[in-house]
Amino acid sequence: MPHFTLEYSGNLDARVDMGKVVEMVRKAAVESGIFPLGGIRVRAVRCEHYAIADGSADLGFLAMVLRLGEGRDLATRKKAGEHIFKTLSAYLDPVFANGKFALSFDMQINDKETSWKRNNIHDALKAEVING
Amino acid sequence: MPHFTLEYSGNLDARVDMGKVVEMVRKAAVESGIFPLGGIRVRAVRCEHYAIADGSADLGFLAMVLRLGEGRDLATRKKAGEHIFKTLSAYLDPVFANGKFALSFDMQINDKETSWKRNNIHDALKAEVING
Amino acid sequence: MPHFTLEYSGNLDARVDMGKVVEMVRKAAVESGIFPLGGIRVRAVRCEHYAIADGSADLGFLAMVLRLGEGRDLATRKKAGEHIFKTLSAYLDPVFANGKFALSFDMQINDKETSWKRNNIHDALKAEVING
Repeated sequence: MPHFTLEYSGNLDARVDMGKVVEMVRKAAVESGIFPLGGIRVRAVRCEHYAIADGSADLGFLAMVLRLGEGRDLATRKKAGEHIFKTLSAYLDPVFANGKFALSFDMQINDKETSWKRNNIHDALKAEVING
Repeated sequence: MPHFTLEYSGNLDARVDMGKVVEMVRKAAVESGIFPLGGIRVRAVRCEHYAIADGSADLGFLAMVLRLGEGRDLATRKKAGEHIFKTLSAYLDPVFANGKFALSFDMQINDKETSWKRNNIHDALKAEVING
Repeated sequence: MPHFTLEYSGNLDARVDMGKVVEMVRKAAVESGIFPLGGIRVRAVRCEHYAIADGSADLGFLAMVLRLGEGRDLATRKKAGEHIFKTLSAYLDPVFANGKFALSFDMQINDKETSWKRNNIHDALKAEVING
């Protein structure tokens, strides 16, 4: 945790550098201060086939979903989400200015009773701090 | 909202025109009458690697999930879902007739407290109505 | 049901045979004994763009989500999940040994009231048993 998945219409590849987008979301998640660094995972899924609103081919979308663990209250989640969404939205200003576009962001909470993980990134990051 | 995501086994590309499938789902969503036109986003995610049932390579699947906002009662959601599923299922009759195939459709409701959006498609559609 | 979706960082393609991974998850799901064979669908979604933890390019992740139907109690779900996760985790030992990697597995339960399906694999499997 946390997991950010960004699904997007394939026509965005010509308008946005998706590598920069995922990196920007990662940084915003770090800045929110509510996530352990080693747990942050952001990824984008390109959708070759899509149909939006009235079906016009020039429409685009980016839909982000965050799955996170239990244990943070609503106010904390809202504040973090607000920061991440604002950052992403501002970066996409040119996309809004130059075309018809829909951006969204929703959160889901994973059930801790049925959640498994194994992660050696936390320890690697600690080792870097100690040895770095 | 609403967001339709269709995950499918890569072997369907030879049997189905996925561009037509997403367009058909979009139209059925419009016909259901419960969604604002400008919010409808349908997309397909092709899965290169998959393993189904007993693992036979000729099996196929298409799994659709709809994420929608709060505020519609169960009867409304069921009626809309029924229409969309029937439409999609009928279109895929040849796939069922010619092979072993599993189709599914599930709904999820997004928490309105942690939901952000920015969308200039609604306004663009209104402008088209006024100017068109 | 059940649906297993594995999202993974594109850099894993050089380290893991993802075709074997989905087949291994399928087998582990069968072994768990709680799923009808004809309903098991495992797939992997490759993510070309991703940003993990401190943003280092050599980090990797695999995030599995299982969506399953209602009707199995928590103890049953936990036991099945434990088996599937252990199997997958053990297979990925070399990935953990040779790099920084994050594996996760979460379960979600679909609302039976808004769930539709059509599946001719069940009958095909029965016919194979009878005729085989």
